[in-house]
Amino acid sequence: MRLTRYFLPVTKETPADAQIVSHKLMLRAGLIRQTAAGIYAWLPLGLRVLKNIEAIVREEQNRAGAVELLMPTLQSADLWRQSGRYDAYGPEMLRLKDRHDRDMLYGPTNEEMITLIFKDGARSYRDLPRILYHIQWKFRDEVRPRFGVMRGREFLMKDAYSFDLDEDGLRKSYEAMFVAYLRTFARLGLQAVPVKAPTGPIGGDLSHEFHILADTGESALFYDAAIEEVTRDDLLSADASTIARLTGLYAMEEEEHAKVADCPVPAERLRSRRGIEVGHIFAFGTKYSASMGVSIQTKDGSQIHPQMGSYGIGVSRLIGAIIEASHDEAGIVWPESVAPFRVGLINMRADDAACTHAADRLYGQLCEAGVETLYDDRDERGGAKFATMDVIGLPWQLIVGPKGLEKGVVELKRRATGEREELSVESALARLAG
Amino acid sequence: MRLTRYFLPVTKETPADAQIVSHKLMLRAGLIRQTAAGIYAWLPLGLRVLKNIEAIVREEQNRAGAVELLMPTLQSADLWRQSGRYDAYGPEMLRLKDRHDRDMLYGPTNEEMITLIFKDGARSYRDLPRILYHIQWKFRDEVRPRFGVMRGREFLMKDAYSFDLDEDGLRKSYEAMFVAYLRTFARLGLQAVPVKAPTGPIGGDLSHEFHILADTGESALFYDAAIEEVTRDDLLSADASTIARLTGLYAMEEEEHAKVADCPVPAERLRSRRGIEVGHIFAFGTKYSASMGVSIQTKDGSQIHPQMGSYGIGVSRLIGAIIEASHDEAGIVWPESVAPFRVGLINMRADDAACTHAADRLYGQLCEAGVETLYDDRDERGGAKFATMDVIGLPWQLIVGPKGLEKGVVELKRRATGEREELSVESALARLAG
Repeated sequence: MRLTRYFLPVTKETPADAQIVSHKLMLRAGLIRQTAAGIYAWLPLGLRVLKNIEAIVREEQNRAGAVELLMPTLQSADLWRQSGRYDAYGPEMLRLKDRHDRDMLYGPTNEEMITLIFKDGARSYRDLPRILYHIQWKFRDEVRPRFGVMRGREFLMKDAYSFDLDEDGLRKSYEAMFVAYLRTFARLGLQAVPVKAPTGPIGGDLSHEFHILADTGESALFYDAAIEEVTRDDLLSADASTIARLTGLYAMEEEEHAKVADCPVPAERLRSRRGIEVGHIFAFGTKYSASMGVSIQTKDGSQIHPQMGSYGIGVSRLIGAIIEASHDEAGIVWPESVAPFRVGLINMRADDAACTHAADRLYGQLCEAGVETLYDDRDERGGAKFATMDVIGLPWQLIVGPKGLEKGVVELKRRATGEREELSVESALARLAG
Repeated sequence: MRLTRYFLPVTKETPADAQIVSHKLMLRAGLIRQTAAGIYAWLPLGLRVLKNIEAIVREEQNRAGAVELLMPTLQSADLWRQSGRYDAYGPEMLRLKDRHDRDMLYGPTNEEMITLIFKDGARSYRDLPRILYHIQWKFRDEVRPRFGVMRGREFLMKDAYSFDLDEDGLRKSYEAMFVAYLRTFARLGLQAVPVKAPTGPIGGDLSHEFHILADTGESALFYDAAIEEVTRDDLLSADASTIARLTGLYAMEEEEHAKVADCPVPAERLRSRRGIEVGHIFAFGTKYSASMGVSIQTKDGSQIHPQMGSYGIGVSRLIGAIIEASHDEAGIVWPESVAPFRVGLINMRADDAACTHAADRLYGQLCEAGVETLYDDRDERGGAKFATMDVIGLPWQLIVGPKGLEKGVVELKRRATGEREELSVESALARLAG
């Protein structure tokens, strides 16, 4: 993509209302723009990151055998009256009326709706087990939206729902999602700590939250240092034994930790850090399948209510979490897996015909090789171009200037480390296309 | 995908409230499920079609140089007060209040918001021309939602907005979108008729609607038969001359046609057919850029309001339009470009070990070859499997049965024509992987 044809409103000023670094950098790097309190438009660069994260989340859901569908954003209040949650849910639920004065709501979650859909489509034990998921915009009317997309009101979430014949099946579905979560966060370049969670109003007896460690996190965590020894490779090859290893290690949110009389972790191994919740999984049994009358015929002819679980990932929030975990003084440092472009190509002298010719040619070669490239072909000073590339945080910067061209070289800079090297165009291409 | 692990609630009954064939078939084929009046959940098979259509729309927008972003579904009423449309827009706009009693609305379109976003990000003539687009759920509170996704309330739309320095630029952007639309509809296997449209409340002087010809269309069209001579190849290679050729031919909606005193088309060449509106493009000039104060510095230092246009495609509605245009007694007949799977593989005897072994093996080979396959591995009668495959309308059916296997053959059926042929597994694979 040529920057002269793109829409990338990068700003130097840090907006006054942005308190945390991810919020500041998302605004400065032209990823988002606020359009109302806690509601954001995703500008072209931000949308590319969002789609990359969404794709990884989707791949891991599919890999776990979950089937994708898409539920609408608006729901009928009657649906929530069936489960009893319409009145129970607080003012975070955005309630509205349509032109016929019917009570509607903007879905904050979808347990009721998916239960209804499953009820209509499944009859017998042959239709189970199933995990259904969608990735859809949701709304929670936060009283004080802040921290940018980390605590916004309209946000993108992946929510999955499992349906099983018995508790043993539910446990298997729960484990499959647990593995999917470990893999998802590892692929996003994040270290996620699973924390046993109280089940609260959603009910049920088994629940874990997944937290990204970051100083600006809203939760305080206490955990066994051994959790930090679990490697990325361990997570990418996670199975039931990985879950057993992780859940066997102490990890609690402050509130729960405070209730523990004798912490089983010796003081020298107890870590206290802040975390950002990016995922939450629940096994809640028959709460919705019973209240909404889902009846499934078993092999022996009896009728049961399926055992259910629900599994959420905050897709849009993850962008904030990734930036909190990966940035420096100059701006964002994207992990390769989610970077909006792999390479930022800089033409140092757009007013120099030879330099522009060389940069144009290199851009064409990168595109041909399938390397996602943002090409700064603007007629601007080199300093402004470097600052832009640093703040938007693409993994590689490739710099074409008249002096280097005389020597037959271009400069390659790795954003994460700042390392620079001069090399021939051919070598640069070979490196980046790899 | 194995049907035993999928979620495909196919039904035999035709729902009473479904009046038109696309609505009936979408419900029968398990593509959608209504969750409230005019609001639908997209079941797994329907979502795949929706994504395929979305991908084609996106490719053609990108090809035309448009840049994708994503605006939120909810908007602040204040934004619409700036343009004066908040009070002007009728009861189709879903108005609501958040917990702080602020007026909000669920966006039916995005002229105001994109103008605001552009205003913040563009300063000078260097930042123009631009076409920005998004593909997002919108809401129009139809008084009587009907015809399934054709006139639903929550619907998926692609809307693009162009910004140019002058009217000549606007005309070029309008033409680029016109070409994109011709190519998009041709790739979707549809014949679209561009009809000159009155500009109405949106203002401006140039507007075209794109209609798909179908007996159940809501509009009555009158047009020159020569329009039918424009071929698919003409449309796929469309340029300014194609637009000139098409817009030079008479085509009007009934209401406008009735106002024409002397129709320029001789009676024998005047066609009257019904159409489904699937796209609408407008050039409306400075209506929003002036009212919302967008100021751009030109090369000579003066300030202007950019010339704007907007360009919509009803993405979810297109599914209904495609089915209206492509179905038979037995069900849907998907064009290859949007089919949810390319092949439906039928195991005729899931209770026969040899037959199942052969079908499983073939399924593995199709997956390996990258052929999107829905594998009916259920323990059901052959008749039920044929009916399911016919109603969901995948382009190819591949039938594995004990009798064929004895002769070393499988059966390949082309859904569109009903043609069947027996051939070896190797030949079938070669044919389908092509």
